[in-house]
Amino acid sequence: MQNFVFENPTKIIFGKGTIARIGAEVRRFGTRALMVYGMGSIRTGGVYGQVLNSLKEAGVEFVEFPGVRSNPLLSKAREGIALARAEKVDVVLAVGGGSVIDTAKTIAAGTKADHDPWEFFVYTKTVKDALPVLVVLTLSASASEMNPAAVITKDETCQKYSVRSPLIQPKASILDPQVLYTLSPAYTAYSAVDIVTHMLEGYFTNTETGESPLQDRMVYAFMRTIMEAAEKSLADPRDYDARANFMWSGTLAFNGLTTAGMGIVGYPVHMMEHSLSALYDIAHGAGLSIVLPGWMAWSAKRKPARFACLAREFFGAAEADDAKAAAAGISQLRDWFRSIRSPVSLGEGGIPEGDMEKIADNAVELARTWRLKDYTKEVIMEVLQHCR
Amino acid sequence: MQNFVFENPTKIIFGKGTIARIGAEVRRFGTRALMVYGMGSIRTGGVYGQVLNSLKEAGVEFVEFPGVRSNPLLSKAREGIALARAEKVDVVLAVGGGSVIDTAKTIAAGTKADHDPWEFFVYTKTVKDALPVLVVLTLSASASEMNPAAVITKDETCQKYSVRSPLIQPKASILDPQVLYTLSPAYTAYSAVDIVTHMLEGYFTNTETGESPLQDRMVYAFMRTIMEAAEKSLADPRDYDARANFMWSGTLAFNGLTTAGMGIVGYPVHMMEHSLSALYDIAHGAGLSIVLPGWMAWSAKRKPARFACLAREFFGAAEADDAKAAAAGISQLRDWFRSIRSPVSLGEGGIPEGDMEKIADNAVELARTWRLKDYTKEVIMEVLQHCR
Repeated sequence: MQNFVFENPTKIIFGKGTIARIGAEVRRFGTRALMVYGMGSIRTGGVYGQVLNSLKEAGVEFVEFPGVRSNPLLSKAREGIALARAEKVDVVLAVGGGSVIDTAKTIAAGTKADHDPWEFFVYTKTVKDALPVLVVLTLSASASEMNPAAVITKDETCQKYSVRSPLIQPKASILDPQVLYTLSPAYTAYSAVDIVTHMLEGYFTNTETGESPLQDRMVYAFMRTIMEAAEKSLADPRDYDARANFMWSGTLAFNGLTTAGMGIVGYPVHMMEHSLSALYDIAHGAGLSIVLPGWMAWSAKRKPARFACLAREFFGAAEADDAKAAAAGISQLRDWFRSIRSPVSLGEGGIPEGDMEKIADNAVELARTWRLKDYTKEVIMEVLQHCR
Repeated sequence: MQNFVFENPTKIIFGKGTIARIGAEVRRFGTRALMVYGMGSIRTGGVYGQVLNSLKEAGVEFVEFPGVRSNPLLSKAREGIALARAEKVDVVLAVGGGSVIDTAKTIAAGTKADHDPWEFFVYTKTVKDALPVLVVLTLSASASEMNPAAVITKDETCQKYSVRSPLIQPKASILDPQVLYTLSPAYTAYSAVDIVTHMLEGYFTNTETGESPLQDRMVYAFMRTIMEAAEKSLADPRDYDARANFMWSGTLAFNGLTTAGMGIVGYPVHMMEHSLSALYDIAHGAGLSIVLPGWMAWSAKRKPARFACLAREFFGAAEADDAKAAAAGISQLRDWFRSIRSPVSLGEGGIPEGDMEKIADNAVELARTWRLKDYTKEVIMEVLQHCR
């Protein structure tokens, strides 16, 4: 096991009816909140009213900042920063999923900075101060509700970059699984793909050279639960326990637990997918189910043992040969993605195969920023060949 | 899944050579530390020198408070409180295992209170303030390094009671697995028993009425890793990865993760064991390996399904009948305790069977304080019959 520091102070308030507690949580940190949300789904789902009532009861004033889209834009975060400053808010409240939370995090850090927030994302500046961020989660996938990361796309250049800082990690997050009742089958599936990908990228790319029985078993535990819960949620969208298991597993899957002790991990699949969704506005999860199995097939040629390990331990593959076992595991994962109707090829995702070079050109720049030096344009093209 | 709040802000600094970082961590909270430790094993193991060097380098003054014994005493904590006040310390640093950490926690809360610390343990007072607690862990078992609980025995009455407060939860804990190299085979085994018992009590006593696939799988993941790592550590005490897996699993096993969402859990096995170790000064883990299988056998008669679940899912029992499967699982657990040379009966633990009534008299009072109302003297006697 590699040395590590694990520190995750986010307070999770989980369960039925917990949204009513957001006002009191916000009030611990301030009296004037910027309420960041998306395209209005929180209004139809009833979350909006619950949040407003709770804020009012707690005596919290708020300024609304709606309109955050998926694959959130830097320009939108800049608008939020201007508003937060003008309105002199002391808290940023995200009501939404990863896109909304990441926008809120960017606003929280940007408001306290004397430079453009993009500098955080290209590592020319570090976050030194931030407004406190609180969350009412409405979509499980990113685990941004319990981690220090944010991802933003720069409009002008289609660059989808990320920043990490303990200062933007949410102070408290409310997770009421009932908010997922209205989540469409497609987004239920995409969320599952996203969560599975988070764990498998950590599982495959780490620099730990020995065995990692503890972390591996956590990955299997969370992944099995996510897959079961996704299937149950698709069969019955109002299955509370399925939504609850999904929600809590999704958070635990990417809050640092499964990678603590694994050394450095990389996110090449997310990196390549970021190019897909930056260029095509495809759903993030849909992009991942295209790239992940292809990347695994490409990568298994280099270190089949680890891919065979997943295949045997998780998928029950019986093949004695590592390469064959690995292939069987990848095939099972692809079949499962197919079974929940998430696309498993560029063509199924509506992405022209002829655009591979354009995608690779976009991704290779991100590879540099994400310190994935092995991912040259040629390598990315090669991986994309496996995603056809 | 039941509603829950999960908040665990302890910073874990894990790995080889990390003890050198304790000075800087203490310095974040103060400049004058009470250094609490045990009977001197930290001097022979080299930990003492590492801690002192680190404190000195960080410019932290310190007062030593050695001599904490296992099953720590209230009288000792009272002495510590007097010293902490006289020396005007602003931090309490525990260098040890559960007994030392729990004494440090009691001192931290007691120093800030205007009443006897025992009042926290009998719930006549709550903790309202405490000095910050930091930890250098030297023995894995209690998970006190990452949880808000402390257990203390009142000398005069042999009462072993506990308190919980977020205010006494360690701010930071240093976990260097190398400190376990010198741990004896007996205490390696007892630690494993303690950790397994923490998880199984949560697993069996919770008030969740539905399925709990996520929490169950975490229990299986941590328990399998602890058992494997204990065996490897017994075979080679300086197997770093085995000690590391043991240490981190032991912390995760009882830091709130496996019981979040499970409703209320009880600790009847720990309750009865506390009576054993209060009366006989038997090692805590040794007492647990006597009580746990007996309690499971007694309890499985009442709800065999859950015990059959563990037997099938974890131990691979094939019996179709729940009661038979449960018995097979319990038998396997007892065999495993035997294999690591932890006692599995009162007789093996050197406890006279004729003392059962005396033990039950001690335990029944604890049952009241721990809100285990079903555990009358008769019930406890009945359970003890299964521990012969």
